[in-house]
Amino acid sequence: MRIAQLAPLTEPVPPRGYGGTELVVSLLTDELVARGHEITLFASGDSRTKAKLMSVVDSALRTSPDIPERRWMAYDLRSLLKLEEMQSEFDVIHNHMGWQALPALSRMKLPTVTTNHNPVKDYCAPIYLALRKLPYVSISDAYRRFNYPDDLNYVATVYNGIDVDSFESAHPGKRSYLLFLGRLCADKGTAESIEIARRVGLPLKIAGKVDANDVEYFDAKVRPHLKAPEIEYLGEVGHAEKVRLYGQAIAVVYPIAFEEPFGLVMAEALASGTPVVALARGSVPEVLDQNTAIIGDSVDELVKEFPRLQTISEAACKSRARDLFSKEQMAAAYERVYAVLSERC
Amino acid sequence: MRIAQLAPLTEPVPPRGYGGTELVVSLLTDELVARGHEITLFASGDSRTKAKLMSVVDSALRTSPDIPERRWMAYDLRSLLKLEEMQSEFDVIHNHMGWQALPALSRMKLPTVTTNHNPVKDYCAPIYLALRKLPYVSISDAYRRFNYPDDLNYVATVYNGIDVDSFESAHPGKRSYLLFLGRLCADKGTAESIEIARRVGLPLKIAGKVDANDVEYFDAKVRPHLKAPEIEYLGEVGHAEKVRLYGQAIAVVYPIAFEEPFGLVMAEALASGTPVVALARGSVPEVLDQNTAIIGDSVDELVKEFPRLQTISEAACKSRARDLFSKEQMAAAYERVYAVLSERC
Repeated sequence: MRIAQLAPLTEPVPPRGYGGTELVVSLLTDELVARGHEITLFASGDSRTKAKLMSVVDSALRTSPDIPERRWMAYDLRSLLKLEEMQSEFDVIHNHMGWQALPALSRMKLPTVTTNHNPVKDYCAPIYLALRKLPYVSISDAYRRFNYPDDLNYVATVYNGIDVDSFESAHPGKRSYLLFLGRLCADKGTAESIEIARRVGLPLKIAGKVDANDVEYFDAKVRPHLKAPEIEYLGEVGHAEKVRLYGQAIAVVYPIAFEEPFGLVMAEALASGTPVVALARGSVPEVLDQNTAIIGDSVDELVKEFPRLQTISEAACKSRARDLFSKEQMAAAYERVYAVLSERC
Repeated sequence: MRIAQLAPLTEPVPPRGYGGTELVVSLLTDELVARGHEITLFASGDSRTKAKLMSVVDSALRTSPDIPERRWMAYDLRSLLKLEEMQSEFDVIHNHMGWQALPALSRMKLPTVTTNHNPVKDYCAPIYLALRKLPYVSISDAYRRFNYPDDLNYVATVYNGIDVDSFESAHPGKRSYLLFLGRLCADKGTAESIEIARRVGLPLKIAGKVDANDVEYFDAKVRPHLKAPEIEYLGEVGHAEKVRLYGQAIAVVYPIAFEEPFGLVMAEALASGTPVVALARGSVPEVLDQNTAIIGDSVDELVKEFPRLQTISEAACKSRARDLFSKEQMAAAYERVYAVLSERC
């Protein structure tokens, strides 16, 4: 098919650092090209892609200090006008840009689909609701449950894909600690991770950043417990270090305290052959299962069930990652969405 | 007629402080209501208007610190979606919001007109050019000359109106100084104003703000010359003080060094019965004439011609302000624009 992929312009595709949406767009786009589709990627000019690149701005907006945020939307509109001008060249448009694109999509003459990468917050909800009939994809059933399930025209749930082969497990016997990876904050349950590690008597490595508004939490709930090697904080880590940390962990602890729509950490852990110990919030019960995780409703329950980790195999974890969260399965799922939408039109 | 006025959401209508566009929208809207039209004003909820007010945000965006600039456009889109939903209730839409509204206007089913209050800068020019067939109004012929005169579908030039009656002249004989009013910077010619005052031997009062990036200019070109009462800097002044300053000035000096599209200061001076001494740049030759101003191509020429001020009467200045720059003439001019556009459709 001839598909237009519409990316945000804030980060390049793929992103240099943080940028979950741009990473997913990159993996999806390159995989669709590999599967023989003709893809045009609307993204910032510093993007790197196997698709044909259409850009209205040389550098991603967040890396252009001379472009104030209030002008960002001018570039979004220019990207959308370019897409509108070229629309006869495509069979379907896939929007990853969010609310910015919805009014423009509503007047395109071909099928469109919008993946909701971010929660529909109050300030933009009226835009989604005014254009509720456009086709939407949720990134998990949990996402959908908390984002206007009865109002928006959700046509599918497609999990975010990762490059499963870029993760690896350690040599047998090398796994020696629990791992907390992600932003250190109450929502992600850093303090509960420390409690779990202590109660099961295993060392914990903590990797991730402390945002400015989480410094108080860090100072009160995390810093007092830091004492290597029992509880060790490594700061932010890059991809290579992250792969090494996943691959040598006995389990990733994930005692989240909010309805996380899609936890990339869980998918990456499974891809590394590493089970997850998680509280049953948000997408946890979808992403994980009894063969790959300890899932419970409280820290007490997780600690009590912890010994069952012995029964979980690396192979089961990797197999689930490959079946549900590979970029290949993501591309195949979107191919089905595009096909259904094209038939409808 | 039933008219939708679409204001920016950054400042309330009218603005509490700076906000040239919002002031013009306020004067136009209230005057159109007074003339019997049915006006709906799309603006922030803290606006005050005689029209029916439609708001998607309680407070103007610039006064809402909890709304980051990158979300401002969500409110613009919400205002536009509300307008689209209500479009059958109007005969014409008048856009003052700028490029943000153009794609939405292009799909409305009724006549629209966009007043270009700001220059078409490079970052948004592709949006204007993609929608060049929409009807545009320039705020002066000078504006049009420097903003894609051969590309955009300009249907009229309408000068910004002011509330002429809110300005007043001093009692005869009370006029005793030259006045520079506006931002202190090279473009506005603050230093040249000082030179003119010295060479003609009259005191100069300077009123206006110094922007952060003009501090260097102020320190080098203005501050060394300040010595009251000959050259006096008053800082920023409010409306009442501004009216008093205009009304007691022998003349306003306006030696601008750029192509100013519309100098509100000139209109306000004339409304106060005060002549202007100006360099012939931008809209100067349109706004002023030989009966109301000394116009020249250099400071030397202005100084040489200065004695001719004696021949200029308060009445001529006020009369020109009333004929060209009153809110009443602005409303009448827009009524003609609306009528022509409605006939075309």
